Amino acid sequence: MTYCVGLQLERGLVFMSDTRTNAGVDNISTYRKMHTWEVPGERTMVLMTAGNLATTQAVVSMLDERNLAPSERDPSLLSTPSMFQAARMIGRTVKDVIADQTAGGYNAGTTFNATMIFGGQIRGAPPRLYMIYPEGNFVEAQAETPFFQIGETKYGRPILVRAYDPKMDFARAIKLLMVSFDSTIRANLSVGTPLDLQIYEADSMNLGLSRRIEDGDADWRAVSDGWSDALRQAFESLPDVTM
Amino acid sequence: MTYCVGLQLERGLVFMSDTRTNAGVDNISTYRKMHTWEVPGERTMVLMTAGNLATTQAVVSMLDERNLAPSERDPSLLSTPSMFQAARMIGRTVKDVIADQTAGGYNAGTTFNATMIFGGQIRGAPPRLYMIYPEGNFVEAQAETPFFQIGETKYGRPILVRAYDPKMDFARAIKLLMVSFDSTIRANLSVGTPLDLQIYEADSMNLGLSRRIEDGDADWRAVSDGWSDALRQAFESLPDVTM
Repeated sequence: MTYCVGLQLERGLVFMSDTRTNAGVDNISTYRKMHTWEVPGERTMVLMTAGNLATTQAVVSMLDERNLAPSERDPSLLSTPSMFQAARMIGRTVKDVIADQTAGGYNAGTTFNATMIFGGQIRGAPPRLYMIYPEGNFVEAQAETPFFQIGETKYGRPILVRAYDPKMDFARAIKLLMVSFDSTIRANLSVGTPLDLQIYEADSMNLGLSRRIEDGDADWRAVSDGWSDALRQAFESLPDVTM
Repeated sequence: MTYCVGLQLERGLVFMSDTRTNAGVDNISTYRKMHTWEVPGERTMVLMTAGNLATTQAVVSMLDERNLAPSERDPSLLSTPSMFQAARMIGRTVKDVIADQTAGGYNAGTTFNATMIFGGQIRGAPPRLYMIYPEGNFVEAQAETPFFQIGETKYGRPILVRAYDPKMDFARAIKLLMVSFDSTIRANLSVGTPLDLQIYEADSMNLGLSRRIEDGDADWRAVSDGWSDALRQAFESLPDVTM
């Protein structure tokens, strides 16, 4: 499994992903699931991937144009006129890679599926955040649905739904994501540290803070250890039930 | 979907189940998923069901021996020498009903599956709590795994894992279950009120407090409304993250 979350805030975008992949519980590995592209001052793009690792790596390699000789690489992601066009390009690539792996072409039952969260900004338009499906189509975040999760989404959702606030600053957003990831990691062995964090400040046109959060990270430990106590105190604070 | 939880406490057992069944989001109904049997002073049994409704109703009817004429009914559940034997009887019934519905007999891919939580006490032995699988086998709760969930288990699990305490009294246990159900109901449309609650006090040999919790129930509203604020305060109480 995997857990990735992309948040749209008034101040910009925040992305967090885990790094655990598995082919059964007896075969786990660490892979980066967050990929970035940037033309400083002009465009920034962040892609997070869940699903079949061979599929997602092939998609990222094709977007990087690694099928070309190094001297000829000029990722066309860096020349799309809009984030919408970039999302379409990624969607088509996902669909093509899956169809190529699946006997008889793409079908809903294929095991080579992948789902992605894609966000960023191109100068002249506001930041955008998309969720891209294995069928190649995609939806965009809006005020009523200001964040996307992929992979193991359930354990970490209740706190996101309740504590998310579009006006929150980046430090609070990181804390919120850490709580959501902590709940998930404690419940599902196939999601694990280290975590990758990427901040994008709206209209900065440059990738902002990027951080790899290891298991021993002081902030992560403070949130992870503190959340158990905080939850228990929250539970204590509720009124008693009449018998 | 469904959500049911059975908790084993030092003081006894607590059971809670929702009542929503669906055949698609455009076709929902309310059915009781909690069933009880009792010989006052001698034995009490509680069964909660998740899965195919035709399967679970058939299982309960067969356990009630409703296939016999009313005058001949004497449910053999009420004459098993132990809870273990009662669990075996339920397991065999589940497996037989599923096999009967499935072309070619039981197989792992059948859509007629059902999973159950079964608990209670027969005089002379301590209270027992089991989870019964569609294959007809079952596992028993132990100190390390003192509760079982069936149906939509993920949203409501983090608070159970963190706030459960085997020494808690029944009022706290009900509050804990209400929080767990509230998180689930807010996230999954296929789990819904009213809820059924059943308390069994160890060695009482009588079914204890039984309560149907409607959406307007004062305790339920207090927990449901209070938990959002309590969670947000818990989040506030965590230390800030360094940028």
